[in-house]
Amino acid sequence: MNTIQPHFSPGDQMVDRDLFRSAMASVGAAVHIVTTDGAAGRAGFAATAICSVSDTPPTLLVCLNRSSSVYQAFKENGVLTVNTLTPSHTVLSGLFGGKTPMEERFAAARWLKGETGAPVLADAAVSFDCIIDTRVPSGTHDVLFCRVVMVREGQTDDVLAYHQRRYHRLGQPSLLEG
Amino acid sequence: MNTIQPHFSPGDQMVDRDLFRSAMASVGAAVHIVTTDGAAGRAGFAATAICSVSDTPPTLLVCLNRSSSVYQAFKENGVLTVNTLTPSHTVLSGLFGGKTPMEERFAAARWLKGETGAPVLADAAVSFDCIIDTRVPSGTHDVLFCRVVMVREGQTDDVLAYHQRRYHRLGQPSLLEG
Repeated sequence: MNTIQPHFSPGDQMVDRDLFRSAMASVGAAVHIVTTDGAAGRAGFAATAICSVSDTPPTLLVCLNRSSSVYQAFKENGVLTVNTLTPSHTVLSGLFGGKTPMEERFAAARWLKGETGAPVLADAAVSFDCIIDTRVPSGTHDVLFCRVVMVREGQTDDVLAYHQRRYHRLGQPSLLEG
Repeated sequence: MNTIQPHFSPGDQMVDRDLFRSAMASVGAAVHIVTTDGAAGRAGFAATAICSVSDTPPTLLVCLNRSSSVYQAFKENGVLTVNTLTPSHTVLSGLFGGKTPMEERFAAARWLKGETGAPVLADAAVSFDCIIDTRVPSGTHDVLFCRVVMVREGQTDDVLAYHQRRYHRLGQPSLLEG
């Protein structure tokens, strides 16, 4: 019989912005570069706030800050590609996560053109080329519901992860029996 | 000058359900047990499809299949806790990911009671106790927009990750310079 204790202990905390960010850093996630191209121009940013929703139809979510410099490009182009990074991409991740001009970001890697026209990172672990179906505002961000129209699988099984504000390798060998 | 090549190669694939699932397995993610309690009873399931949305207000997303046996409990209770697992929780993850009766799932670990009433895993890496603010249907799933009302940080920095359908350890030491 398991016991349900009455409450959080006094050490547990109501949630302000810094506590939430620190706690989310404890979770960890794969790192992606999300790209777009079209009438509003080419743009891209590094992201971890992405997840799968449904396989019927294949749909994933991308969270995007409405105050981001790239927001309008994604909104107007209506398409994007999620490029999941490998451990070799730490420098590229930094370029797409900072204030580097867009041309310099893209000049640092080789890109293909996706079905939607969005740039596909040639050596990504995997890329999901998508049409943005719906935008749902939540706080400072829009959640983009994205229909996946093409997948490109890469040559490596390892992905780049971010956890406790540091990069990690996620992949073979698995450290635990699955 | 980087080159945009004209298109995907013939080896790239249009997206059916199996391809999408295989590609998402390549991404990898932290593993969580999501719990609820209230008038509709106690329930919980293992999940990787969770992500942060906004820190203003602190909000995260949980994706839940509407055909899941636990769906009604989450919908009616209107609250949940996301408990991020550690590498010691592989067996618990399996229990909450399968067909095990709910009482047996919860009997396998020690739980506290969250601010919302939802069960908080005592030795989780981190727990996010939440009120479900909005449900947005997408394909087979509902995306639950959850307001975080309490955070409980655990004693370990390592989290359990799932990648290529195997468990991994994500944590110290970091394998790359961050």
